[in-house]
Amino acid sequence: MHAITIPEPGGPEALVWDEVPDPVPGEGEVLVEVVAGAVNRADILQRQGFYNPPPGASPYPGLECSGRIAELGPGVSGWAVGDEVCALLSGGGYAEKVAVPAGQLLPVPKGVSLTRAAALPEVVCTVWSNVFMVSHLRPGETLLVHGGSSGIGTMAIQLAKAVGAKVAVTAGSKEKLDRCAELGADILINYREQDFVAEVKKATDGAGADVILDNMGAKYLDRNVQTLAVNGRLAIIGMQGGIKGELNIGALLAKRGAISATSLRARPVSEKAAIVAAVREHVWPLLDGGHVRPVVDREIPMSDAAEAHRVLEESGHVGKVLLVAP
Amino acid sequence: MHAITIPEPGGPEALVWDEVPDPVPGEGEVLVEVVAGAVNRADILQRQGFYNPPPGASPYPGLECSGRIAELGPGVSGWAVGDEVCALLSGGGYAEKVAVPAGQLLPVPKGVSLTRAAALPEVVCTVWSNVFMVSHLRPGETLLVHGGSSGIGTMAIQLAKAVGAKVAVTAGSKEKLDRCAELGADILINYREQDFVAEVKKATDGAGADVILDNMGAKYLDRNVQTLAVNGRLAIIGMQGGIKGELNIGALLAKRGAISATSLRARPVSEKAAIVAAVREHVWPLLDGGHVRPVVDREIPMSDAAEAHRVLEESGHVGKVLLVAP
Repeated sequence: MHAITIPEPGGPEALVWDEVPDPVPGEGEVLVEVVAGAVNRADILQRQGFYNPPPGASPYPGLECSGRIAELGPGVSGWAVGDEVCALLSGGGYAEKVAVPAGQLLPVPKGVSLTRAAALPEVVCTVWSNVFMVSHLRPGETLLVHGGSSGIGTMAIQLAKAVGAKVAVTAGSKEKLDRCAELGADILINYREQDFVAEVKKATDGAGADVILDNMGAKYLDRNVQTLAVNGRLAIIGMQGGIKGELNIGALLAKRGAISATSLRARPVSEKAAIVAAVREHVWPLLDGGHVRPVVDREIPMSDAAEAHRVLEESGHVGKVLLVAP
Repeated sequence: MHAITIPEPGGPEALVWDEVPDPVPGEGEVLVEVVAGAVNRADILQRQGFYNPPPGASPYPGLECSGRIAELGPGVSGWAVGDEVCALLSGGGYAEKVAVPAGQLLPVPKGVSLTRAAALPEVVCTVWSNVFMVSHLRPGETLLVHGGSSGIGTMAIQLAKAVGAKVAVTAGSKEKLDRCAELGADILINYREQDFVAEVKKATDGAGADVILDNMGAKYLDRNVQTLAVNGRLAIIGMQGGIKGELNIGALLAKRGAISATSLRARPVSEKAAIVAAVREHVWPLLDGGHVRPVVDREIPMSDAAEAHRVLEESGHVGKVLLVAP
């Protein structure tokens, strides 16, 4: 098969479409013939040499895909060759075929094309596990989503609105904020022109955000704590603004606040399967019913993954960038 | 009645035993004739002028007491005049009488004297709400308790052992660590001579602590994060080592860790009542059965509260220091 390889870490041009051996599904795994993959920021870190695949994972980038089951490994039940699926991966989504534990498979939702289903696994699992399983967002509460127009952001807005929460978003342009509003966001904050602490407080009668989904890490740590409501929960899923930041424990304690920091990729197979099962139970009915949709910015041929990485690095996109297999 | 008042913030001598008006129980409150109160670090901060009582609370220090119900306010059921109780307070425990919401009352456990019951409410509610309700310590997991010989520490050791957890403690002397061992602590760390990160790792085959109960705040923040196991939870309940500290978000994220910071006193009456109800359900049977005991360092006459504060500030004590009413 062909896959995107990284012979030497570097810029987008480091991504090389090359011939490689086919993966072989192990115990409890299936082989998926990939129709599309999707790009995540973690793939850029991997390309740059800063995020090596966890032990046992495919060496090729790509944390999610859609496609058809081509082969069942030993001990797999509940799935058949030919099933159309999407999957949460530990790597290897930028390829024509990938082996994946059966617990990380999801059916393609009604009304979503097989290609666009590639936009779902990583964002749905990330949002559900953080905003709902860890931070327990409840109806009537306020969620602040940083990067509201990103793949994660566009899904977080929709899921939070679906459970009856109020949603605040930050983004860097009026165009992006307009797209967030179309998806249901209630409070729109242009972080280039406005102070998100003040704007969230103003829009919540001074109460603040009950849950914050953050991709900025250190840069926003202090302001996120300032923005939290009493009993508020800050869920950090990215460190685009740095790794080490000053935590005002006094401010956190005065709010009885909590901070979590997680990633999906490093979780063991059993934890991933538990998240995928929860997502299938709680989120898939919303997708099947058309209440929540994947938001796709564009589709790019997988062999030109370098172009997809440039799009993500320029941050002009809204939603997910897909890589379509040949 | 008499109460300890604080005419001017300052050292222990700022505490003055003076005649003051009797409190009047409001809607849903009872009046307790105090037999004993207990000293908490927060009382020292209040004496120094750094921790004002929350709105509506008694101006006198004292976050817990034991005694007999002297009067029922309007709308109280389930309790009777003469009942022997202990109570979680928002203030006013250094006094001959105190008014308290009925939801913050607990019966005196079997086999515990009415005086010693004053040692229970604050430590039991703090440990249960943080270690179990927020951080969900489970059987077989490892709890690290900083200040293992404190009032909080001696209760945390016993409760964690009672649910089948492994317990590591830090303390500043062999004598204190011996007392922790008597209460069941498995891993004893003298923080003056040993590195708690290394010791906890060594004793857990490199895994680290699943839950940490911390009273040091900033000073231990980075080392606590280093000590956390994968999926570990750090519960901060004090800031004896400072308010602002550097958080390594990358280290926290690699462990999928969580940090919470809480205090009991500022919680609304409804949250206190929920904690007291949970404590009565889960901890009181352990006390009634003699599996968990209050640990009392000494009893001092309430009018000499200054001496009790000196004992706490010198940190030579083990367990709780009680103030016995005249």
